[in-house]
Amino acid sequence: MTDASGRPPAAKKRGRPARTDAGAGPGARERILTAARAEFAEHGYDKASIRGIAKGAGVDPALVHHYFGPKEQIFATAVEVAFTPALSASEAVTGGSPEGAGERLARFVLGVWEDPVTREPLLAILRSAVANETAAKVFRDLISTRLMARIAARLSGPDPRLRSELAAAQLVGTAMMRHVIKIEPLASADLEQVIAMVAPAVQRHLTGPWP
Amino acid sequence: MTDASGRPPAAKKRGRPARTDAGAGPGARERILTAARAEFAEHGYDKASIRGIAKGAGVDPALVHHYFGPKEQIFATAVEVAFTPALSASEAVTGGSPEGAGERLARFVLGVWEDPVTREPLLAILRSAVANETAAKVFRDLISTRLMARIAARLSGPDPRLRSELAAAQLVGTAMMRHVIKIEPLASADLEQVIAMVAPAVQRHLTGPWP
Repeated sequence: MTDASGRPPAAKKRGRPARTDAGAGPGARERILTAARAEFAEHGYDKASIRGIAKGAGVDPALVHHYFGPKEQIFATAVEVAFTPALSASEAVTGGSPEGAGERLARFVLGVWEDPVTREPLLAILRSAVANETAAKVFRDLISTRLMARIAARLSGPDPRLRSELAAAQLVGTAMMRHVIKIEPLASADLEQVIAMVAPAVQRHLTGPWP
Repeated sequence: MTDASGRPPAAKKRGRPARTDAGAGPGARERILTAARAEFAEHGYDKASIRGIAKGAGVDPALVHHYFGPKEQIFATAVEVAFTPALSASEAVTGGSPEGAGERLARFVLGVWEDPVTREPLLAILRSAVANETAAKVFRDLISTRLMARIAARLSGPDPRLRSELAAAQLVGTAMMRHVIKIEPLASADLEQVIAMVAPAVQRHLTGPWP
């Protein structure tokens, strides 16, 4: 076995690993993050281990720690990618007619949950956040700064943060009932029908009259 | 140590335990169910053990199995109590003016989540259902037959099951964001304000115009 440079992998050393350690090389960071998402999705935060992540990525556990630090940090970095579409979500709110914002946001969020590739990191986050307070804090911080703050900034009227959180609650709840609990008929309903049914409630939270 | 009959507890026997086994006696069933809810809430379905439940209830593990069968069965029985208020939930939908149904249902469901005593079994279910497919199935069956079917039966108009599921999605999502993820400002918002904000969306699902 040789690494990307064509040399055999360096022998394992004590202390902080050098970049030439087992499994290091181009793409190692990305491989580790992919393995971490799979590990967290399968086992949840509590049972996920750095050893398991390293095994999945084909690298030495020390390298995982060297790149990403302790488990909490790996989790935050691994799931952060799930929030990359957050910018699109906030743009969905204002990128068109105000009265279409609910439908655009519902289509965007439920669409992300529909695709197994984008669903897995979300499931990993949800499983971990429901079971573990450290993971819940990571999720809380990400959803606050990456999603809610951005959507709220585009709303006019009172309580924009609460409005955006209740719109999110409708969408997160719908995704949970459809993809996690899998309750029927919602689990098998046509996505377009679900969007059409959910959009008015989301719209009301975003732009409707306020009590 | 003596049991409720004043006799010392019978020695442990092989096979099916008699009712006089360690910890048996009046209230043992209820003690086991209480301990089971605490065990599932703290550890989730996967990590919860019959041994842990027995320890919490102060009984022999064989007695737990004798009364309730395997873990799946204990889980179903232990969490079923969380659905006892389901009748009240379905009555909330029709026990008053139709235009007040959304507020009554929101008040009822969010009120159950507000009280730590009634919140614990719900958290136990949610943690377990999100992490484990067996627990998700138990939850799915209970919520379908105990809650959704009853609420849907009281709705007129098309797709009553889907309507009731999307109303539930709004409420479950709100409870998750407020009590599990604890996102601010929703987590600290006044309950009456949250009910006032959520009720119109729930109302729309239950009785509003349908796409």
